[in-house]
Amino acid sequence: MTKTDKWYRLSGPEGDVVLSTRIRLARNLNGLPFPAYMTVEQKESVVQKVRAALPQSPKLTLLELRNTQRIDALSMVERHLISPDFSRCADGTAVVLSDDESVSIMLCEEDHLRLQIMRPGLQLTEAFAAADELDTQLDEQLHFAFDDRLGYLTQCPTNLGNGMRASLMLHLPALEESGSIRQLANTVSKLGLTIRGCYGEGSRSEGHIYQLSNQVTLGITEQEAMDNLQNFAMQIVREERAARRKLAQDMRYQDNIWRALGILRYARSLSHQELLELTSHLRVGLSTEVLKGVAFTGDDLNALINDTQPATMMMLARQELEPVERDTARAVTVRERLAE
Amino acid sequence: MTKTDKWYRLSGPEGDVVLSTRIRLARNLNGLPFPAYMTVEQKESVVQKVRAALPQSPKLTLLELRNTQRIDALSMVERHLISPDFSRCADGTAVVLSDDESVSIMLCEEDHLRLQIMRPGLQLTEAFAAADELDTQLDEQLHFAFDDRLGYLTQCPTNLGNGMRASLMLHLPALEESGSIRQLANTVSKLGLTIRGCYGEGSRSEGHIYQLSNQVTLGITEQEAMDNLQNFAMQIVREERAARRKLAQDMRYQDNIWRALGILRYARSLSHQELLELTSHLRVGLSTEVLKGVAFTGDDLNALINDTQPATMMMLARQELEPVERDTARAVTVRERLAE
Repeated sequence: MTKTDKWYRLSGPEGDVVLSTRIRLARNLNGLPFPAYMTVEQKESVVQKVRAALPQSPKLTLLELRNTQRIDALSMVERHLISPDFSRCADGTAVVLSDDESVSIMLCEEDHLRLQIMRPGLQLTEAFAAADELDTQLDEQLHFAFDDRLGYLTQCPTNLGNGMRASLMLHLPALEESGSIRQLANTVSKLGLTIRGCYGEGSRSEGHIYQLSNQVTLGITEQEAMDNLQNFAMQIVREERAARRKLAQDMRYQDNIWRALGILRYARSLSHQELLELTSHLRVGLSTEVLKGVAFTGDDLNALINDTQPATMMMLARQELEPVERDTARAVTVRERLAE
Repeated sequence: MTKTDKWYRLSGPEGDVVLSTRIRLARNLNGLPFPAYMTVEQKESVVQKVRAALPQSPKLTLLELRNTQRIDALSMVERHLISPDFSRCADGTAVVLSDDESVSIMLCEEDHLRLQIMRPGLQLTEAFAAADELDTQLDEQLHFAFDDRLGYLTQCPTNLGNGMRASLMLHLPALEESGSIRQLANTVSKLGLTIRGCYGEGSRSEGHIYQLSNQVTLGITEQEAMDNLQNFAMQIVREERAARRKLAQDMRYQDNIWRALGILRYARSLSHQELLELTSHLRVGLSTEVLKGVAFTGDDLNALINDTQPATMMMLARQELEPVERDTARAVTVRERLAE
């Protein structure tokens, strides 16, 4: 596993504001209860069926969660490959991953299959095309439960219909600073969209990162849902950029940006929360060209944020670390990666 | 006026804790009211008498305050050459300075003469010797008012007796951090000493800098007062050093020290108050060897703190600067002086 082959180390369109695109499809097999009502044996049978149905390309690897180290599972949560709840339900469950981690399929989470495709930047069309192709390949073998009136059958009624959730991870420091973010939250619900913190429902925004996704799945095609999301996202991108240009005129904000770099380059202890806050300033500095003469890019920041998450750090270091040790080790990594 | 010839750019004994030593003598001429009750003409006559009595060595320059620019006068306050009140009373008053600013004499402040000798570090004996020599030279010409029972006559009864105030500027971040400073304040009064903020009575401590001085002047010789001060100061020095060594073991405090350096090297705007707070951490870092591989010394910090005081900055820049402009210019100076 080299550092360069992961999807989140690559740049994407509108990457100054849209950090990543995610398409998630909820699918279920016919003739079996939903996972919440399944025995371990029934879950294992789903895993076996899916294993047999996996396409040759892209190359996919199936990991049974019971054979996965706790730290590796927690790191997968941090990398948004599996959900927090799923990481705690190891019996009979499994996850399918592509080498670049742009494809993941949770087996026997809330639904039998949760297909996920990730792309850097704003790439709804590309991500959906990849999801659709994988869905079609699997459907040929597995024959997903589908109802002419309700669409794809899912455990939770809110996923009925196309069963698709398209999400964009947005970095909105300037709209947060200007207070426009609250207004935005009111607008999105009228458009059948929802906005929330970066770890999904109920989570707080950390480092000014928000997740924008479609709310409505029934009575709407995937394309309509994505067009809706794309249009609104581009409006937010334009607003965020305008707000950043304004913010970058402010001497105090410029000062904040440079101080953030100073702290990152000198601190001997850093929590991941603080790293998110400080790198948020650096992103604005890079995109507004306040930060000049630095060697790192927004992609480097993405990789840094990923690699210094608590469980991911321990996975990469191949050892358990106490929180204090992590904060120290994180500061070392940050100093190395952001060196002059 | 070169940068290297000022007393405060030189190192002194115990300079890691004792920033400077000051001896001040209050003296008055016979046959004249105290300055508070003098006419401008009477004040001018005092200035003339002192001008005629100034010794050849050390070379001293007399400046009439009415001929002094407002910014220069404010800068003299910042450099502790004159008092804040004195800077506002220009009519008939004057100040006598040596080139290195280690000697200053305020004429017609609270008393007719306020002689002051400054030295870097803990140098009570040396500073008093210089003060005593100048006092003797002036007394031969001016015949200071002296009473066998009350000693030197001064406007304020608290200065009667030897008329001497010996003060030490102490940097006590570790004793402040540990909370011992409050206990210290209780102890000093029992010893006939007083401790307060660095700009004298009623002023707050900035950057963990405190002024320790003798309180009692009547019925005690200068030597007794200084011995008392010296002994107690050395006790504080030992306690502060021990507390710093303990503090320097603390990973969080080490982190603070490095962050302070990061902010100073990267900030685009710095208030003088913040500069004092941050350089306070650097001093501890230098004296405990937490900060390694840096080119600057404690003396450089002393000079930096001096040169970036609001009025002193404007005096050196030879222009008026708004507070925001000063904060920006200060950050530029700090980045230059503390560069890697």
